[in-house]
Amino acid sequence: MGLIVQKYGGTSVGTPERIRAVADRIARARAEGSELVVVVSAMGHTTDELIELAHRVSQEPPHREMDMLLTAGERISMALLSMALADRKIPALSLTGSQTGIITDGGHRRARIHRILGDRVRQAISEGKVAIVAGFQGVSEKKEITTLGRGGSDTTAVALAAALKAEYCDIFTDVDGVFSADPRLVPSAHRWESVSHDQMVELATRGAGVLHPRSVELAKQYGVPLRVRNSLGASEGTSVVAETDLKPRGMEEYRVTGVTCDRGRLLLKVELERATVIGALLDRAAENHLSLLTPVFSGTLVQLFIERDAEGEWQRHLNELVVQGFLRSYELERGVVPLSVVGDRFSQDGTALAEVLETLAQSQISVTMGTSSALAITVAVPATHADDAVKALHARYFENRREAK
Amino acid sequence: MGLIVQKYGGTSVGTPERIRAVADRIARARAEGSELVVVVSAMGHTTDELIELAHRVSQEPPHREMDMLLTAGERISMALLSMALADRKIPALSLTGSQTGIITDGGHRRARIHRILGDRVRQAISEGKVAIVAGFQGVSEKKEITTLGRGGSDTTAVALAAALKAEYCDIFTDVDGVFSADPRLVPSAHRWESVSHDQMVELATRGAGVLHPRSVELAKQYGVPLRVRNSLGASEGTSVVAETDLKPRGMEEYRVTGVTCDRGRLLLKVELERATVIGALLDRAAENHLSLLTPVFSGTLVQLFIERDAEGEWQRHLNELVVQGFLRSYELERGVVPLSVVGDRFSQDGTALAEVLETLAQSQISVTMGTSSALAITVAVPATHADDAVKALHARYFENRREAK
Repeated sequence: MGLIVQKYGGTSVGTPERIRAVADRIARARAEGSELVVVVSAMGHTTDELIELAHRVSQEPPHREMDMLLTAGERISMALLSMALADRKIPALSLTGSQTGIITDGGHRRARIHRILGDRVRQAISEGKVAIVAGFQGVSEKKEITTLGRGGSDTTAVALAAALKAEYCDIFTDVDGVFSADPRLVPSAHRWESVSHDQMVELATRGAGVLHPRSVELAKQYGVPLRVRNSLGASEGTSVVAETDLKPRGMEEYRVTGVTCDRGRLLLKVELERATVIGALLDRAAENHLSLLTPVFSGTLVQLFIERDAEGEWQRHLNELVVQGFLRSYELERGVVPLSVVGDRFSQDGTALAEVLETLAQSQISVTMGTSSALAITVAVPATHADDAVKALHARYFENRREAK
Repeated sequence: MGLIVQKYGGTSVGTPERIRAVADRIARARAEGSELVVVVSAMGHTTDELIELAHRVSQEPPHREMDMLLTAGERISMALLSMALADRKIPALSLTGSQTGIITDGGHRRARIHRILGDRVRQAISEGKVAIVAGFQGVSEKKEITTLGRGGSDTTAVALAAALKAEYCDIFTDVDGVFSADPRLVPSAHRWESVSHDQMVELATRGAGVLHPRSVELAKQYGVPLRVRNSLGASEGTSVVAETDLKPRGMEEYRVTGVTCDRGRLLLKVELERATVIGALLDRAAENHLSLLTPVFSGTLVQLFIERDAEGEWQRHLNELVVQGFLRSYELERGVVPLSVVGDRFSQDGTALAEVLETLAQSQISVTMGTSSALAITVAVPATHADDAVKALHARYFENRREAK
């Protein structure tokens, strides 16, 4: 066996007991002869607690200092994990993002990785040690500490696997893999043995929640074999693979991989003062790295799904843009969420979109807007009907027609 | 050298001289030791002429008979090419879609390939012959002759390459490869040595015109190495490859591959009688395999780009839907075309969409609607300004910022 990168999320290292369980799992992989690089997140809700602390000492904490603060979270978990390994007589070395040489741009709180040096990781491995790397953090060319924002630890793990040419990258989380719908909502949901990178990006972007799309895009770009596995169970998980590594299907069939609903988003409708000022709105979002799903505009009306967590920040920007004369008004539809069907070949004609809308209509679920790209159909549905909508579409694609599998 | 599939389009076999030139090219490839399967389209405008003939003898020619008629086109070109090869002492065997075992569904004029038997092709090759296969045609399980619709010959070639596990599939056409914009319009446009399957699908869907998206999707699914080459020149062409075979770039950068404008489309705006009847509209399009680009709907307004060639067919369906009480009205904006920027990671935030709209605003080009997916941004612009829009966006992404290359 060669080099493997394992990543453990906040839940997996959330308590001392779980950290010891992770150490046991690492011990087993090592006993099988693998060289290991382990990426860890901060324990449980540590990051949220640190953010809350910051806001209790400062009205508007400087982003640089926030990064300094937050990076303490992974220091704690990686040091604890190294200790648990030492207890098991397994030599381990914890390394910060900076020590690992994860070089990012200068964007505090939402930095993007430029490249990875990885010398100290290679050194540790060559000395027979397990390298424990802090996820979510890096260092800019100017030697400032940065954090990678959402999905940061997944991204660290995949980027490291790419830089070290690892055999594969295992992302340990608290679910059994990638499903055709949320199995808590749809008990008959199908766990995929493997999904393609593209399908995983779309599922992740649209609320599947298992992996962050950034990390999947990196895995695709560098051909990193990726697996999603449950750190608390024995499920085989789901492999994220190149399209050509999937099982054969009919030559020109379209395919549905999953039905998702992102309850962490809401619909924003903006009425522009003039159609030409849409740039002011988008620039503001882009400058602040505010995520927006399926932006659609027509004349002076712009519609998009924003993250609920960022509602306050959006409101601040939107109010400013109203005062500055760019926007006539805006409306946050808190009761409307994006429902998506992810698959492929949706561009061929209107078949897939028609089927989705027909199924929702049969279940008396009203759809107020939507759009379709080659890989995903996303529509706006009332949050109160979202569960029913997921169930109806899942039944349509996975229960009533066997060939869809 | 192993087995190679070559496909020659209508222009490449458009005259007897060109057919002889194709025979010479085949002779050279054979002299280099390759086993060859050659897929040909009908000569030049033969298919259009046959369609016109049909409409001059019948108000509404039955689809089954239309397929019977149209498949004569490739019979002519493949027989002629086999003769030219015989002249050069190269043993060749022409095979219809049916003889090749290209098994399709029963959808006349727009059949989809289910599988390929290929026994007679393998037999011909094992006997040292060049197999000349009719593109664009197949046979249903019920032994009815079918045609594959748009992009049919490209699809035949790639499907054959997949079934025969060919070393690669060369699509010969009348341009030098895949460019960052139409080189007739933007002389400084960059020819790509290679592009990814995904980028090629998006470019092809949005008017790049070199390859049909169906064939690229098949190539991606089966991992068929694909090249676009000029049958009239010596350019190396463009390879369509897996993402991981592209040259390295920055780890988390977004990328632009091309700027396209599809002058063969126009904007259709439909006002529904009620929001719930959108299914009736989409079903009608799907049943008739009418292509629609970037469908977007909000309340009772639906907007999408349709093909100009299908305007008459759309109008017939739309008028029926008005009479049946589904639609309040519709409007064909003949002067509005889709302009697209193809790339990736456009979903991260609004940056790419903001840049596109800012660039168009600076060039005083009005944009009436648009949307963005992960891989493409498409906006509606006046056809009269489409050239300026392509030039401005190409300058923005390829001339004023070197790192974009």
